[in-house]
Amino acid sequence: MVNLSANDVMVAKAARVSTIGKRSAADDLPTEGLINFLMRDRHGSPFEHNHFTFLVEAPIFVAREHMRHRAGWSYNEESGRYKELEGVFYKPAPERNLVQVGKAGAYRFEPGNEAQRHVVERDFYSAYAWAFQHYTGMLNRGIAREVARMVLPVGIFTSYYATCNARSLMHFLSLRTISEDAQCPSFPQREIEMVAEAMEREFRESMPYTHAAFVKHGRVAP
Amino acid sequence: MVNLSANDVMVAKAARVSTIGKRSAADDLPTEGLINFLMRDRHGSPFEHNHFTFLVEAPIFVAREHMRHRAGWSYNEESGRYKELEGVFYKPAPERNLVQVGKAGAYRFEPGNEAQRHVVERDFYSAYAWAFQHYTGMLNRGIAREVARMVLPVGIFTSYYATCNARSLMHFLSLRTISEDAQCPSFPQREIEMVAEAMEREFRESMPYTHAAFVKHGRVAP
Amino acid sequence: MVNLSANDVMVAKAARVSTIGKRSAADDLPTEGLINFLMRDRHGSPFEHNHFTFLVEAPIFVAREHMRHRAGWSYNEESGRYKELEGVFYKPAPERNLVQVGKAGAYRFEPGNEAQRHVVERDFYSAYAWAFQHYTGMLNRGIAREVARMVLPVGIFTSYYATCNARSLMHFLSLRTISEDAQCPSFPQREIEMVAEAMEREFRESMPYTHAAFVKHGRVAP
Amino acid sequence: MVNLSANDVMVAKAARVSTIGKRSAADDLPTEGLINFLMRDRHGSPFEHNHFTFLVEAPIFVAREHMRHRAGWSYNEESGRYKELEGVFYKPAPERNLVQVGKAGAYRFEPGNEAQRHVVERDFYSAYAWAFQHYTGMLNRGIAREVARMVLPVGIFTSYYATCNARSLMHFLSLRTISEDAQCPSFPQREIEMVAEAMEREFRESMPYTHAAFVKHGRVAP
Repeated sequence: MVNLSANDVMVAKAARVSTIGKRSAADDLPTEGLINFLMRDRHGSPFEHNHFTFLVEAPIFVAREHMRHRAGWSYNEESGRYKELEGVFYKPAPERNLVQVGKAGAYRFEPGNEAQRHVVERDFYSAYAWAFQHYTGMLNRGIAREVARMVLPVGIFTSYYATCNARSLMHFLSLRTISEDAQCPSFPQREIEMVAEAMEREFRESMPYTHAAFVKHGRVAP
Repeated sequence: MVNLSANDVMVAKAARVSTIGKRSAADDLPTEGLINFLMRDRHGSPFEHNHFTFLVEAPIFVAREHMRHRAGWSYNEESGRYKELEGVFYKPAPERNLVQVGKAGAYRFEPGNEAQRHVVERDFYSAYAWAFQHYTGMLNRGIAREVARMVLPVGIFTSYYATCNARSLMHFLSLRTISEDAQCPSFPQREIEMVAEAMEREFRESMPYTHAAFVKHGRVAP
Repeated sequence: MVNLSANDVMVAKAARVSTIGKRSAADDLPTEGLINFLMRDRHGSPFEHNHFTFLVEAPIFVAREHMRHRAGWSYNEESGRYKELEGVFYKPAPERNLVQVGKAGAYRFEPGNEAQRHVVERDFYSAYAWAFQHYTGMLNRGIAREVARMVLPVGIFTSYYATCNARSLMHFLSLRTISEDAQCPSFPQREIEMVAEAMEREFRESMPYTHAAFVKHGRVAP
Repeated sequence: MVNLSANDVMVAKAARVSTIGKRSAADDLPTEGLINFLMRDRHGSPFEHNHFTFLVEAPIFVAREHMRHRAGWSYNEESGRYKELEGVFYKPAPERNLVQVGKAGAYRFEPGNEAQRHVVERDFYSAYAWAFQHYTGMLNRGIAREVARMVLPVGIFTSYYATCNARSLMHFLSLRTISEDAQCPSFPQREIEMVAEAMEREFRESMPYTHAAFVKHGRVAP
């Protein structure tokens, strides 16, 4: 988290301008019930008068999923054209499920056996090292960064600033987390879910009533 | 101005993530030249990681022009369905030009003569008072607010929260202010220009380098 | 309806690019089941590769509600600055409910009695005529259109082009129509609901499977 | 190009609703001069009532640059989670410049010498083949597609539908093509410029007056 300017009181103020007008002393009125009502009846706009800026470090395949979120999101990312990339790559942690069962749109994942875990360990190392060696080799011979980087895998780490408001953040969370509270099932890849979980912690801390109402009403963005 | 979270340093940080990456100690580097470069070459996204929330009090015809700005803007407005509106109306100040010359897209305005000023003074009072009397009359007889309000003129005041980022704000300013520095001529109605001028003061104060670069490069949003 | 370029087959094509890739002979595959699945699991983006352009004629208070819809919508509207407005005003039809009961966010409406109906009939006529007379009076004395129009009521008709895609249209319909099929209650003003109903007819005709899936899954935009 | 619904006449119709209103027989009026005026004075909204849907086949590093365009763009892309990817990779053509000179934000490119060309030829083949071999090897041992694909390079081809309107397309073209007509310099990577050039041909063909005005006024989106 880099920066945020978000709280529950501003949600209530923005909602009350509809019904009470500008002179509302909204700070002194209770906000919890109002926020619940807004969430339940999908009055989304009062949740937009705030902002969260995150500095995300994640592999490219995660950044790609993240940046598909357009409405209410802004991004600035490290560029393989403008800088030489570091050889930092994502490797599945030991607890990461490796085997996919079921059909498109409703996958489940299972741990995989020891042989599979070994293959992943070995092949990721081999593939990443080979790719990065070719990348630096080409750079050393004067090939342009924007050309040499084409051989780098989507598992390489990138970093980017991502800015959103609470409404667009809830939309992101509804699609990129798995929860028993969710009214509608989601099937995010585990790696972007980890990014989403970190964002959700910041969200819950800065806007506790909004977060509680989001959970209570099925984790659907209003 | 209700709330803002905006400064020049974050613009530079967001821009530098492209070229230096996440470890940038951007706070310690000079930002003015970089911001100038971003503005000149229309790199707009670094100007989006911030937000401004304004509480605007303006007549409906101004709110209508304002809310045509969609990208990067959020609104919550007083509702004539949910609350009884107050009888506060906009009247042109004595210095407001009343006469329009020239053709569509390139109007100029002139003060008007004394007779015209008198007509406006009289007719505005007469029209507003008559409309509001009918409005309250219908309310008193139990007519729904959402029906009775149909007779209220677009000169009645409304209030709304408007949230944007610096990039969308600059786009707004480029279209809603008149300036000799502008590369491209604009023809805003004077009443929305007054709103824009108030916003520009807040913008200049919180992001002085960004504002200076905006002015220097023809008041075009990057 | 002015123009549309929308059908169910393109939805299926766009969705199948994820799973089958570019060589999909999607035209020959059944689309109904796939569209149902997309709607149920909120895969919204395949519904964006199309467009609807409507020419709407409605009073200003409806246009104001309509133009609050920003994401995926484009507008061009008649201007009271650039043309002299015609004196065509909205009057509630005899079957329009006039009395509002219940509290904010959950209003119900009732017809009203004969006296109330008479008051509306009389006061609307009186208020509209008076306002328009002042408007034309000021124009005749050389007052600028953008000034004179300030006294015109929000019940005056305007016209505008509104363009959207099927996803943004469904979002609009979910908020601006009342239906027993709706998973989440909505409380639109009757006048914008009439606009929405006309749009829904075009939508149903051009994208029958998409419309059926929208209704089946609670009239929530995916 | 998959589908388009775009022409110059609709631009003029949308613009004329401001000044003439709904009854405009805009089809019969000349449109060229009006479109020029709209472009020059940055009246952008009349260019939004249309749509272009492209099926793009490009390497991932191009798709990543493309999808940074958010406002007015919709995407659906082939998924490495839902389908096994084919081993089709991008290789720089013989005429592609390989060497980068100058500094960030103002690079120039030069052909490179024969040795460099040879290195690229050899290293691209080696890096791509190795990565794809590891990918299929892991799939064959039952590793989930979403895991195995992490080792694939950003030079692998993907395919996606991209939908936009003429205004968002012009913004894209202004940043992703290099032209002597451009008022503001751009530095796109050659590979996305090739995508942009293909789009521009479709644009020019369907909206010749709009395209001509875009070029005439410095290739800046209105």
